[in-house]
Amino acid sequence: MKKIEHIGIAVKDLSLANEVYQKLMGYQHYKTEEVASEGVTTSFFKCGESKIELLEGTTEDSAITKFVNKRGEGIHHIAFAVDDIRAEVDRLVNEGFTVLNKEPKRGADNKWVVFLHPKSSHGVLVELCQDVDPAMIES
Amino acid sequence: MKKIEHIGIAVKDLSLANEVYQKLMGYQHYKTEEVASEGVTTSFFKCGESKIELLEGTTEDSAITKFVNKRGEGIHHIAFAVDDIRAEVDRLVNEGFTVLNKEPKRGADNKWVVFLHPKSSHGVLVELCQDVDPAMIES
Repeated sequence: MKKIEHIGIAVKDLSLANEVYQKLMGYQHYKTEEVASEGVTTSFFKCGESKIELLEGTTEDSAITKFVNKRGEGIHHIAFAVDDIRAEVDRLVNEGFTVLNKEPKRGADNKWVVFLHPKSSHGVLVELCQDVDPAMIES
Repeated sequence: MKKIEHIGIAVKDLSLANEVYQKLMGYQHYKTEEVASEGVTTSFFKCGESKIELLEGTTEDSAITKFVNKRGEGIHHIAFAVDDIRAEVDRLVNEGFTVLNKEPKRGADNKWVVFLHPKSSHGVLVELCQDVDPAMIES
């Protein structure tokens, strides 16, 4: 794993959480983005080479809504940056990890993402992220 | 906050978790360390400018043992690196955050650490870390 790309934090109210995290970090977020396919709205704060991603569920069956309803607000996942997500998925499957989506899907902030099941990483939902080729990003 | 210093992950069995995280990260941890005052044994993996810290509770009243018994294994806290921990604590208290120990205490990997209560940061246990002056580190 190259670096921690971001830490995902599940919140009930993105607007409130934004205000709190602006105070915590000491500076403003750099973007908000809706990922309709995942039923979330996100807000990103830079932190060194990594980011903090706040996530609010926008639908009842969003994974974030379910997480908050079941466990309350808190850290939801850790995302690692990788150079070649398909090669990394193959390597991890060979090592015995359970992959939630073998085929990379589009995540927030112009990434290809794959999730690993928490049961294979001691209760931690792990996300792998690879930058989308800039030529593919819609302007 | 300067960067994510580390992500703390609470586990039941550090030896087993070490093997799994060595496979996940693709490389070995660089140290283990016992912090008797906190009732934990830790293992650290480098990841870019950050680290992954696995924590196993060594006593029944360790915060890590209690966390694992109550919620199961998983992400326990996020630690941010700061240059001046006392100034940062003052700033955050002024902003309304609840500090668990106002006086910095010694943590693992040669740090001064202060924790913020999760209730003031949307369910996230936040740790602030400042490097201990190298002259103070026992050889």
